[in-house]
Amino acid sequence: MIQLVKKGGSFGRDFIRQLKLRNEESNRQVETAVSEIIENVRLGGDTAVRDYTLKFDGALPDQTEISSGEMKGFLSQCEPDFLSALSRAAENIKDFHSRQKQQSWFNTDEDGVMMGQRIRGLSKVGIYVPGGTAAYPSSVLMNAIPAKIAGVQEIIMVTPPGKDGKPNPDIMAAALTAGVDRVFLVGGAQAVAALAFGTETIPKVDKIVGPGNIYVATAKKQLYGTVDIDMIAGPSEILIIADETAKPEFLAADLMSQAEHDVLASAILLTTSEEIAEQTVAQIDRQMPGLSRKEIIARSLDRFGAIVVCESMEEAVAFSNELAPEHLEVCAANPMEYIGKIDNAGSVFLGNYSPEPLGDYFAGPNHVLPTSGTARFFSPLSVDSFIKKSSFIYYTESALKSAQKDIIQLAETEGLTAHANSIKVRR
Amino acid sequence: MIQLVKKGGSFGRDFIRQLKLRNEESNRQVETAVSEIIENVRLGGDTAVRDYTLKFDGALPDQTEISSGEMKGFLSQCEPDFLSALSRAAENIKDFHSRQKQQSWFNTDEDGVMMGQRIRGLSKVGIYVPGGTAAYPSSVLMNAIPAKIAGVQEIIMVTPPGKDGKPNPDIMAAALTAGVDRVFLVGGAQAVAALAFGTETIPKVDKIVGPGNIYVATAKKQLYGTVDIDMIAGPSEILIIADETAKPEFLAADLMSQAEHDVLASAILLTTSEEIAEQTVAQIDRQMPGLSRKEIIARSLDRFGAIVVCESMEEAVAFSNELAPEHLEVCAANPMEYIGKIDNAGSVFLGNYSPEPLGDYFAGPNHVLPTSGTARFFSPLSVDSFIKKSSFIYYTESALKSAQKDIIQLAETEGLTAHANSIKVRR
Repeated sequence: MIQLVKKGGSFGRDFIRQLKLRNEESNRQVETAVSEIIENVRLGGDTAVRDYTLKFDGALPDQTEISSGEMKGFLSQCEPDFLSALSRAAENIKDFHSRQKQQSWFNTDEDGVMMGQRIRGLSKVGIYVPGGTAAYPSSVLMNAIPAKIAGVQEIIMVTPPGKDGKPNPDIMAAALTAGVDRVFLVGGAQAVAALAFGTETIPKVDKIVGPGNIYVATAKKQLYGTVDIDMIAGPSEILIIADETAKPEFLAADLMSQAEHDVLASAILLTTSEEIAEQTVAQIDRQMPGLSRKEIIARSLDRFGAIVVCESMEEAVAFSNELAPEHLEVCAANPMEYIGKIDNAGSVFLGNYSPEPLGDYFAGPNHVLPTSGTARFFSPLSVDSFIKKSSFIYYTESALKSAQKDIIQLAETEGLTAHANSIKVRR
Repeated sequence: MIQLVKKGGSFGRDFIRQLKLRNEESNRQVETAVSEIIENVRLGGDTAVRDYTLKFDGALPDQTEISSGEMKGFLSQCEPDFLSALSRAAENIKDFHSRQKQQSWFNTDEDGVMMGQRIRGLSKVGIYVPGGTAAYPSSVLMNAIPAKIAGVQEIIMVTPPGKDGKPNPDIMAAALTAGVDRVFLVGGAQAVAALAFGTETIPKVDKIVGPGNIYVATAKKQLYGTVDIDMIAGPSEILIIADETAKPEFLAADLMSQAEHDVLASAILLTTSEEIAEQTVAQIDRQMPGLSRKEIIARSLDRFGAIVVCESMEEAVAFSNELAPEHLEVCAANPMEYIGKIDNAGSVFLGNYSPEPLGDYFAGPNHVLPTSGTARFFSPLSVDSFIKKSSFIYYTESALKSAQKDIIQLAETEGLTAHANSIKVRR
């Protein structure tokens, strides 16, 4: 049962503490197992990867790499309506992310000085796609499309083979739609290690992104620095701020859409209306029985769900800023008024007709978002996640002459006389 | 003695492997000590910080915080020429970084849909500044100015007190010039932990940046996720590509300016001219005795320095791209031709009059750069390092109606029926 906290009721510190503890899933045993896998793949390459695939996936695919011809062959196994929905979603995602693209720039001065910043896509990016029930085609689009737009030269997807040694056809369709270049049927920490070091068949990449279980997440964390990674995603969360114009039927549905992800998912409603709070509880009871993942929803709402009646919208916003939710819905009469008040949130859904699943699948903004309060300092996955920048400086002899006194002064103050010498030899 | 590898000489794999091993300074003992400090500061706040300050710095400052009035009082202890050089450098750094600033943006459609990306500065940022001989005013400018331009509301600097319990006046001058808001005299892992959790006197921040010893670096790494951090910096490096028009006197000076940082620093020259290679060795011998840090330079060049004669500039560029150096100088007749060929480098210095110290101190681009080959995927510190983004979505009822079939299809394909339900209740 979701908890309902009425005005003046006790809510806060303890619940937030509990929310923050959701994350601590990894443990010494997982850490050790993963670091052993990483070391073996580093030394053993393909052989080690094959051994682990047999051990963990129970089947060895006929071939590790799926050619693009073979990928196209899987399309006939997908529902046509799914394929067209996927393609429309991809268009929206491309449109939104294209607007994020930064350009290289430079600046010149009259004295011939030229300086700037060159921006390019990373050379190679690896995308991890989980298998089984956690195989989400939408996630392939959200990870691969920004990389493509950033100008990444090669996008390499890894995904574990099914029990029959075959890939999931919907995932293949998403990979084709998103412009993934190569696909390898390998999963787990061994796939992450293979991408980080490269093997005889799997290319070494510069960055690894995508969701995965605790072994995959731990491998990414351990390999951070050898490659770049996206953020370590925690359990999903929604926070809804609702005034008296919100619709309890919608609110209940949206809380549950988040709760169905995972028993660790969190769904919180903050509202200024006690009536709406109570009606939302009633709507949850009414809608839940018809949902296929009702057991997960019930458990998640029971532990990490809450409906809180607030004194004012200001109080609700302040609480939300403190929690820094991954997803924030603002169901209010004038939702735009709140954009400027929201300090910390991954993605903000405004008004009664912008439910969170619209953003998960379709609207265009990325659904890979900072969780567990990290929206305070992390940002949604974006084109910027797949670029590298270099600065460049060109000075003329006369421009260096004008600057030399200052540079020598600063270098000598810092006691770095060889730095000063490099200016002095040019006088 | 710097090694000289002539055409066809053996050079490569072993040297690169050795370069990559320079980093592994941290060890289990440091890790354990640091995690104990972090835990004690988290639980004990100011008391724990004070205990560690006494223990590690040997002196407790009269007061932990330096007011801006007190900061100004230190200016009289600085050389006037240093202050004016610092202020001119700050202007150049501001000018360059202002050009990096991204704007919030949004897009609207005819059907009333509105989507966009809001970009703001982080609320609070902590800057670590080492004490003693590693107290570099230039580093204060390079870390604080981009944060200021990003719109960070409060920049908090921590730096260990000197043996007399007082701060370094030059560092105070740099903090004032860069716009640092508050300064606390505390250093080490305890300062990093205090910034991450907040204490009674030191504010909790969203991100911690700045260089530090192995304890500071390990604390930042361990607290990553609780706060954001900048990259973990490894030992410094320069790679110079020189054709037959380069000046051996300059090349020698530039190699040594990098080598003086640290016995682990690396300095490599790749040149197409055997004559230039030999003359550079001679110039090193000639210039080194006059440099105050000659022992460090000699040790660093001996282990991690090399002059390699290449078959062609293409070979040199390919080698540089593989090494992905922090600093890359291109001393060639037409240096601009190389910008487009350089795949991986933190900062690129073009021509004979753009020595690396120009970038360290004065030109404007940041001197906090990716080391140890991580320029493959990391970028220089920039205004982007101090922002957070949120996406926002506003859909109208009719726009959601047009999208509903696709969203429901995608959600149901993924087995997430509560996601589909959140659309269905709005029909």
